Amino acid sequence: MYIILVYDIDQRRVGKMLKLCRQYLHWIQNSVFEGELTEVKLKELLHHAKSIMDLSYDSIIIFTSRQEKWLDKTVIGLEKNNLDNML
Amino acid sequence: MYIILVYDIDQRRVGKMLKLCRQYLHWIQNSVFEGELTEVKLKELLHHAKSIMDLSYDSIIIFTSRQEKWLDKTVIGLEKNNLDNML
Repeated sequence: MYIILVYDIDQRRVGKMLKLCRQYLHWIQNSVFEGELTEVKLKELLHHAKSIMDLSYDSIIIFTSRQEKWLDKTVIGLEKNNLDNML
Repeated sequence: MYIILVYDIDQRRVGKMLKLCRQYLHWIQNSVFEGELTEVKLKELLHHAKSIMDLSYDSIIIFTSRQEKWLDKTVIGLEKNNLDNML
């Protein structure tokens, strides 16, 4: 499945969450990730994510699409992809 | 078209951008918006957005899907929708 994941995580926990998400997905903007994941891998990611989050304060939104071609992406301004490779 | 818009905007400009995006889309997380827009309305939004942005520093990513049903959305943790109505 094609995944877009966006998070809003308190700064005390955001470093851990960034590290976790980058193990599964591509980092495309400050708090936005995308990529292909199987259902099993997505469940695994969300399981780990929940253990990092304060569920009464933080949030994650996941958009899933069965096929990437059903979505078009347009970037305006700075592309983080380039930065990602340098980090 | 169904739109997901995510931005990463310097704090000096983010207030203006938030106000702009909320005129066109639903605010669902800190820097994430979704909704239905015609192609013309999307162009209009992006035209205004570019006039606010510093294109060498800020970024906007727009995902478009011809049909909302091609995307599933899952929210984990706090749902901002509820907050949005109160603001």
